[in-house]
Amino acid sequence: MTDWALAVDIGGTKLAAARVRTDGTVQVRARRPTPTDDDPESIWAALVSLVDDVTAGDVPARVGVGCGGPMRWPAGEVSPLNLAGWRDFPLRARLSHRYPDAIVRVHNDAVAVAAGEHWRGAGRGTSHFLGMVVSTGVGGGLIVDGRVDSGRSGNAGHVGHVVVDADGPPCACGGRGCLEAIARGPAVVAWAQEQGWSAAEASGATLADAAWSGDPLALAAFARAGQALGVALASVVATLDLDAVAVGGGLANSGDLLLAPARAAFDRHAGMSYVRDCRIVPAELGDDAGLVGAAAFVLAGGRYWPAGAD
Amino acid sequence: MTDWALAVDIGGTKLAAARVRTDGTVQVRARRPTPTDDDPESIWAALVSLVDDVTAGDVPARVGVGCGGPMRWPAGEVSPLNLAGWRDFPLRARLSHRYPDAIVRVHNDAVAVAAGEHWRGAGRGTSHFLGMVVSTGVGGGLIVDGRVDSGRSGNAGHVGHVVVDADGPPCACGGRGCLEAIARGPAVVAWAQEQGWSAAEASGATLADAAWSGDPLALAAFARAGQALGVALASVVATLDLDAVAVGGGLANSGDLLLAPARAAFDRHAGMSYVRDCRIVPAELGDDAGLVGAAAFVLAGGRYWPAGAD
Repeated sequence: MTDWALAVDIGGTKLAAARVRTDGTVQVRARRPTPTDDDPESIWAALVSLVDDVTAGDVPARVGVGCGGPMRWPAGEVSPLNLAGWRDFPLRARLSHRYPDAIVRVHNDAVAVAAGEHWRGAGRGTSHFLGMVVSTGVGGGLIVDGRVDSGRSGNAGHVGHVVVDADGPPCACGGRGCLEAIARGPAVVAWAQEQGWSAAEASGATLADAAWSGDPLALAAFARAGQALGVALASVVATLDLDAVAVGGGLANSGDLLLAPARAAFDRHAGMSYVRDCRIVPAELGDDAGLVGAAAFVLAGGRYWPAGAD
Repeated sequence: MTDWALAVDIGGTKLAAARVRTDGTVQVRARRPTPTDDDPESIWAALVSLVDDVTAGDVPARVGVGCGGPMRWPAGEVSPLNLAGWRDFPLRARLSHRYPDAIVRVHNDAVAVAAGEHWRGAGRGTSHFLGMVVSTGVGGGLIVDGRVDSGRSGNAGHVGHVVVDADGPPCACGGRGCLEAIARGPAVVAWAQEQGWSAAEASGATLADAAWSGDPLALAAFARAGQALGVALASVVATLDLDAVAVGGGLANSGDLLLAPARAAFDRHAGMSYVRDCRIVPAELGDDAGLVGAAAFVLAGGRYWPAGAD
């Protein structure tokens, strides 16, 4: 067996690949924008070309992939919401065909982030952990008793759909008042704009700049999103009795703009001592979390892949 | 080894004990009111006397106990909220001293109910399951990948403290807007009374009678509690990707008065198909669930007791 895995992170805006060593360090990275056309084969061709850059002629013995959901799991037939060209695309089967002697495993990208943060990031050493991302969407993955919890159908960890306001705005999932409907980056920006905030280029980043400059509408927008995050985390931690929650992703990169109101709301709703004991911390691995976690699916001795899912 | 376990269920109003066979059937039952005095030894003496009635001179090789929380787990030092006489009472150690050759395991009573319903009740055959109780309190226990999830400190499954209304009423836990603060039996009755409902003897049972007779205030009280339950379940199922939720307990015995509005709210908030696929069903074992689950801690080959917690 080689001493590295091929790790792949597939999102709606970028494809990334890397060699990840058995100790979790990232050796060789490459990325490119995700093709926007609707042809599944041109997306596949872009992925193959990226992967060939990283493998440089070596054949991987282990291939781990994090990919946007939904997907049929563990079959790895993917239909990423933000990647219109792939619908029921047999990603795991195609990779297994390309690398017939390799172990190939595909899971949701948010589960990869959680696995990466647990293996080598902010969740190291915990037994019960939530790794989550607040970005264009809000997602997460769960570690229970030191192992990934995939749920019945591979969907455990979808904390973006915890209800934080039963009478709140409709969510793209079909529900109402979900954390994601309130705290996803585009919703936070849109809410600020509805309140009268404007910018030459409105985005999560420019909204964060405005908030750091003291703009009251921008501050209020982050406070509202952080409050929703804190309420959701109080519910999740009460239910799951976690050691720690790590929050990463684009909007979370705004740091205390999001986490300070989140911690305040969490403290308001976290009554029992075991809930209050849970640490809420920033994620540590940044953009590498998904790659490190994809590698963890195939390098960490089954801790991040359930027995029976191969 | 004997072909039965001694099962014990300790609550604020009753103590129950039984012999439970290895197939989960309850052979011999006994119960008595929980002593209300503050002397820990008189509660212990009542428990010993009850247990002696059930064992009838035989010595159990396995003893499983569900007890009201909180407790230090797995040490089994218990401080049941509704049992003022026991504070840090070393229940597991005392039972081990009395039965020095037995395996003795103590866990939260709601975890026992969940284990019982999973082993022999409404959760049979599921891999991801929540067993919960809506009664004087609201509690539950989780099955993840076919095994009890105890969380970091034995508290996983406390779904009564999922936040269903961030601006809602204060909860005894110190938080605000928890499911339990709205849907626990006494809170439902109190809310109905605040709206003008009255009865010679106000209780969950008489409120249910009034609702079945069409009393609009009583119906509204159950609708409000059921709505809170459905919102909480949408959050929990989105996070945990469960096969099924079983709802038991005193207020849940009112059947569709609670479950119909709960299912309606669940449907409103459960957007994604894997959430909608989760079954919400009545518990099946009634008052036996806690005893069957306590037995499951010691009879089911470790599925309901984590390795390393002995």
